[in-house]
Amino acid sequence: MELNGVTIDDTYAEGFPTWVARPIITAVTEEWAYKAALEAVGFATSTIGCPAEAGIDCFVSPDETPDGRPGYAILICASKKKLKEQVVERLSECVLTAPTTAVFDGLPDLIDDVPEKIPVKLHFFGDGYEEKREVGGRTVWAIPIMEGEYIGEEEFGIVKGVAGGNFFIMGENQMAALMAAQAAVDAISGVCGVITPFPG
Amino acid sequence: MELNGVTIDDTYAEGFPTWVARPIITAVTEEWAYKAALEAVGFATSTIGCPAEAGIDCFVSPDETPDGRPGYAILICASKKKLKEQVVERLSECVLTAPTTAVFDGLPDLIDDVPEKIPVKLHFFGDGYEEKREVGGRTVWAIPIMEGEYIGEEEFGIVKGVAGGNFFIMGENQMAALMAAQAAVDAISGVCGVITPFPG
Amino acid sequence: MELNGVTIDDTYAEGFPTWVARPIITAVTEEWAYKAALEAVGFATSTIGCPAEAGIDCFVSPDETPDGRPGYAILICASKKKLKEQVVERLSECVLTAPTTAVFDGLPDLIDDVPEKIPVKLHFFGDGYEEKREVGGRTVWAIPIMEGEYIGEEEFGIVKGVAGGNFFIMGENQMAALMAAQAAVDAISGVCGVITPFPG
Amino acid sequence: MELNGVTIDDTYAEGFPTWVARPIITAVTEEWAYKAALEAVGFATSTIGCPAEAGIDCFVSPDETPDGRPGYAILICASKKKLKEQVVERLSECVLTAPTTAVFDGLPDLIDDVPEKIPVKLHFFGDGYEEKREVGGRTVWAIPIMEGEYIGEEEFGIVKGVAGGNFFIMGENQMAALMAAQAAVDAISGVCGVITPFPG
Repeated sequence: MELNGVTIDDTYAEGFPTWVARPIITAVTEEWAYKAALEAVGFATSTIGCPAEAGIDCFVSPDETPDGRPGYAILICASKKKLKEQVVERLSECVLTAPTTAVFDGLPDLIDDVPEKIPVKLHFFGDGYEEKREVGGRTVWAIPIMEGEYIGEEEFGIVKGVAGGNFFIMGENQMAALMAAQAAVDAISGVCGVITPFPG
Repeated sequence: MELNGVTIDDTYAEGFPTWVARPIITAVTEEWAYKAALEAVGFATSTIGCPAEAGIDCFVSPDETPDGRPGYAILICASKKKLKEQVVERLSECVLTAPTTAVFDGLPDLIDDVPEKIPVKLHFFGDGYEEKREVGGRTVWAIPIMEGEYIGEEEFGIVKGVAGGNFFIMGENQMAALMAAQAAVDAISGVCGVITPFPG
Repeated sequence: MELNGVTIDDTYAEGFPTWVARPIITAVTEEWAYKAALEAVGFATSTIGCPAEAGIDCFVSPDETPDGRPGYAILICASKKKLKEQVVERLSECVLTAPTTAVFDGLPDLIDDVPEKIPVKLHFFGDGYEEKREVGGRTVWAIPIMEGEYIGEEEFGIVKGVAGGNFFIMGENQMAALMAAQAAVDAISGVCGVITPFPG
Repeated sequence: MELNGVTIDDTYAEGFPTWVARPIITAVTEEWAYKAALEAVGFATSTIGCPAEAGIDCFVSPDETPDGRPGYAILICASKKKLKEQVVERLSECVLTAPTTAVFDGLPDLIDDVPEKIPVKLHFFGDGYEEKREVGGRTVWAIPIMEGEYIGEEEFGIVKGVAGGNFFIMGENQMAALMAAQAAVDAISGVCGVITPFPG
């Protein structure tokens, strides 16, 4: 196959089964939502040495979030056994601690039949001052924190996914291949439900 | 104490003993060094739920890095027992996998007497094709990878540090306090050897 | 009118007639397209003291650009008399000089009947080495430059628009109002065909 | 001359005499100072088609600004005749209109003997409500605006400078040369008193 003068050899790539959760993180501005999302998906390039594989899936516009604020959908991938712990830790340590954040389950936006749900109970952090509410049709807990309030759903859909998949870029030299890789990452970033967890 | 009309109540803050490593990550451009550094310090706000506490310490100009390329110094903090594993995993998964990177021990730039060193052996990834070199007076291993070569020191100084330390900002409302916090984080970012690992 | 507990007084705002062009700037990566677009819309907050009012309208995904590369649509607004000069100068000085760029007329993507077109002849820069081509159904000139080639359409649709429009945010204090303004700018950035040319 | 295996042919480069002003723009956070500075130096790659040549010189830490806030020094270059108008327009349209900004003369930080000063009178915008103050040893005008107050010096030193200066990068291909150019721009950005006004 040839595209724009580039020969593409479509052979195969190693892939691994994984389980995936897709929280949506919203905040007062795009920037604050982005900062919280970025921290939550860090140290997550490969499960060989990291506790999960994670990345920012896409921006979610205020029209499409339950609370009408700008948000980012992230993907967190791990074995079924480890996924619950990773979602709990990444949301409680990296998002609940970030100013003005709220978290909703973003998997139903992508697939019709969510096969399974995991409980992500953070409301015990409220020491009894937390309360149940409804935001945009979702049942959430409002947990009072120093910076105000953390709003979060406590059930997140999970689904089987594929980890891995790769392609080799053969360039005339290192820098040409690097720019090609960056252009590829840009293109992939526009595809919903796909992340590129390695740096760049 | 009063500063610019703001009353500052200088009382106390909880702190915890920790051990700290300070790798410097360099790359072909500032941006690529930053991307690798950012991934390496992710998911690291608090050791309550994260495997370490980590953050970007400061930009290191090409004049001051062993290989004459732009870099970022990061701090990785954990218990002495856990620190070695965290430095190994974060460098091997998040930096070695990033294009054009090299890593050097940045602790000697900050303190005169480094009390202890930990081994961070990544050269076994080279499957025998790795080789020892000297770069800017440092002994490093050059490990051939798909994108070219990873260059890294394999001994990193560690030192006792303090984790924690905090201050409360009392604002008229949430947004005023948030901007004050951002201004504080900006100011702290200019202080060498100090990080603010929570998002923002 | 009240929205989320905020009273909104929908009265009136001063507006001025203007003419608008909407070039789309593409490049090898999103980042290079963004850098060129940003320079092209600078020094353009208000025609009281700037030669035009301009801003980035929105990201245009590779699926929607004539050359299949990522791009940014910008709006350039000025009096009909001044608009041609401003489009010529901003494209020739800020985009043609940026690496890997191409420019296409983006107005037809937004409105069906483009009332008028202005000529933007940059191909004379080619000193005779330029050539006509077709890219994605558009007739363009390919102009050889030091960095490679600049690709550009040379006719741009223009349409009557409205400059001005504003709203006052009454906050408890300056910082709360500033964050509200930032949230408003975020929301407006999602609306196609609208820019917020003042900084922030 | 050879450096890291790269042959460098140090011949000559065309340069042009110009006059330079160096305002420092401060704001409540680094980000807001950066946004205002960026707008003020836009549409300023080359005086062939732009009204000035301008760029961000460097970050100025709170320790070194008159008001103790973070700032960015910018350079604005034009003919002596045109420089005053350009400094006035860029500060009044792009900085005075940005939230929380203040502007100080940054030329004395760089050179001992400032040969000449230009008046930049913006205080008439205050309609009589403006007032003279002293901030960090500088005489400034405080002008009440919708967002709060604009603080600005009204005399700026100017000095003769050199516009132009360039080097050709011969790469194996376009992308390798582009990365080399980016690395060069990174390195130049660390040199005080020098800007690279073209995009990238």
